[in-house]
Amino acid sequence: MRYLDAEAIENIAIGAAFLGTGGGGDPYIGKMMALSAIKETGPVQLVSVEEIQDADFFIPSAMMGAPSVLVEKFPKGDEFVRVFDKLSRYLGIDKVTGTYPMEAGGVNSMIPIVVAAKLGIPLVDCDGMGRAFPELQMTTFNLGGVSATPMAITDEKGNIGISETISNKWTERLARVQTVEMGASSLISIYPSTGKQLKDHGVHNIMTFSEKIGEIIRSNDVEETVKLDNLLTLIDGIELFEGKIVDVIRRVEGGFNFGEATIEGLNKDVDTEMNVFFQNENLIAEKDGKAVAMTPDLICMVDLETLMPVTTEALKYGKRVRVLALPCDKKWRTDEGIATVGPKYFGYALDYVPVEELAAGGRADV
Amino acid sequence: MRYLDAEAIENIAIGAAFLGTGGGGDPYIGKMMALSAIKETGPVQLVSVEEIQDADFFIPSAMMGAPSVLVEKFPKGDEFVRVFDKLSRYLGIDKVTGTYPMEAGGVNSMIPIVVAAKLGIPLVDCDGMGRAFPELQMTTFNLGGVSATPMAITDEKGNIGISETISNKWTERLARVQTVEMGASSLISIYPSTGKQLKDHGVHNIMTFSEKIGEIIRSNDVEETVKLDNLLTLIDGIELFEGKIVDVIRRVEGGFNFGEATIEGLNKDVDTEMNVFFQNENLIAEKDGKAVAMTPDLICMVDLETLMPVTTEALKYGKRVRVLALPCDKKWRTDEGIATVGPKYFGYALDYVPVEELAAGGRADV
Repeated sequence: MRYLDAEAIENIAIGAAFLGTGGGGDPYIGKMMALSAIKETGPVQLVSVEEIQDADFFIPSAMMGAPSVLVEKFPKGDEFVRVFDKLSRYLGIDKVTGTYPMEAGGVNSMIPIVVAAKLGIPLVDCDGMGRAFPELQMTTFNLGGVSATPMAITDEKGNIGISETISNKWTERLARVQTVEMGASSLISIYPSTGKQLKDHGVHNIMTFSEKIGEIIRSNDVEETVKLDNLLTLIDGIELFEGKIVDVIRRVEGGFNFGEATIEGLNKDVDTEMNVFFQNENLIAEKDGKAVAMTPDLICMVDLETLMPVTTEALKYGKRVRVLALPCDKKWRTDEGIATVGPKYFGYALDYVPVEELAAGGRADV
Repeated sequence: MRYLDAEAIENIAIGAAFLGTGGGGDPYIGKMMALSAIKETGPVQLVSVEEIQDADFFIPSAMMGAPSVLVEKFPKGDEFVRVFDKLSRYLGIDKVTGTYPMEAGGVNSMIPIVVAAKLGIPLVDCDGMGRAFPELQMTTFNLGGVSATPMAITDEKGNIGISETISNKWTERLARVQTVEMGASSLISIYPSTGKQLKDHGVHNIMTFSEKIGEIIRSNDVEETVKLDNLLTLIDGIELFEGKIVDVIRRVEGGFNFGEATIEGLNKDVDTEMNVFFQNENLIAEKDGKAVAMTPDLICMVDLETLMPVTTEALKYGKRVRVLALPCDKKWRTDEGIATVGPKYFGYALDYVPVEELAAGGRADV
């Protein structure tokens, strides 16, 4: 058990935005919310899954929808607590033990910090993805048979919904249409889970991992190449590309940000081109038309010099970036995991090949 | 207080379908559900608003969505009880006093009979429209300031939602998108109301009125013209048109049946044409291009000979019909009532003129 102070929050916001693979929300918005919350209440308690009891009970709070909308529809902060509180009362649990993040992201790793601060409850160092994904059934809890419902949903206007569904895919469908109607973004509390479920089916130590990534990215006393090496070593990752964004196509549809970034090679990648396809999160990276990384592995775009994560809503012409990749949590690399979040689910006619195999010369077959 | 037996149900189904003005569901489906329920449980108790206490508490159950879908997606019957029960438990009320119909319709007047039968509770002779309307905020309760939420929604698959909204228009918006996702029809429990609210804001004696209408329509021992006279006298209505349907345009969109029927004049109306525009319910009747009846007044299409009501999903080429009209409940004829359900709300550039004024030679100004 330890406490997250302002410095930890700054690091986690950046690291989580990195692991958000383009989605999960803008880390600046996220950290401002969390910093403002702990300024009022003092530091937040972070507990590891080893420190919780099997019978403890946890509820996360998260943003759902198109991250680009959040920039204009800034949450007031009471929505997170409202949706958390609504679900607690619906479940009839007098004392929810604590909260946890649903996914890693610049906003979605920060919301549970706000909830933990405001309600004086601990935050568990565990999430349900080990990265960010666009749909509600895309969690390691779902793979473990944990129900996403009862869930609660709210908007900044004060509308509230509760759902109990016959499957986690139906949770996504019914929450998605409400999110779109609410203005393409909403706040949700979902996957109410016992300590045992977090232990068995969560991705552990995600806040600590995010914090370490953020520490490296924010370190200003090391050379650029050393910083990159440190980062790649920590995440067991590879650099896919260095280049300049020359085109971004995007659309908001069905409560998602869909799009594609075209990146012209620089330095080691001169005379080549990369295309990154995204649905909130980066899903496929192609170099000169050949896939070099694919979901569920993490494709992370960062600023060429500072290594600060670049979320999909911040992609713009002329920005110079590095595209990094790292292996996803091993829970995703099962048949069911690939069926749930692999390239085919998202409509790409590609068989999943792990990023490290592709880097070693493996070929993605169509 | 009296009991509704099979004969009463047969009459109410037909009369309510008549008052459903094209919507509210098919009376054959409706009556089969109700008859099957009372066959198991015995007759259902019908109480008038004078017989209930101010502090009593009532919840309706109703179908939401495109009536045409219901024909193919026949409810199992347990959905009505599930949604009623879910809302009761959410409200924390151990003993809900009874139920009531949300609107008059071939199905929607029958569903509360099924609920009353299965749960052994009384049914109040009162609804929230005095006819049928397509959207959830279109109730006399809404005009009286009664909140539509908490409400519950379910589908035949078993998904369940609860909403609490900032306005009754938001109730409609969020329930509508869920209904569309559920397959264009759903079951809802909405407008939980006290006895006092039913007394102050409901349309009273609607089941009894439906029953009397049904009795006349189903009477086979009187001449056709006498039957029509009896019906028009009872409902204080007029006959707008006699003709043959020569064209029906329709589409299912956003959980509604939209469309237009073109009717070629017969008998007294030979050489003229009528157009009836509908959104689930008949909204505007035009004779040779001039409006002769408009929402919220009731435009009821019936079989030319039998006077059996013709719902919008049953409109078809060649069918010979009479188009009747009657004044709506006076609660609708206020400024707020007309703003809520008048022709302009539905997109028609017409100032509302009461049907009896139009019949007396009044003119609908654009």
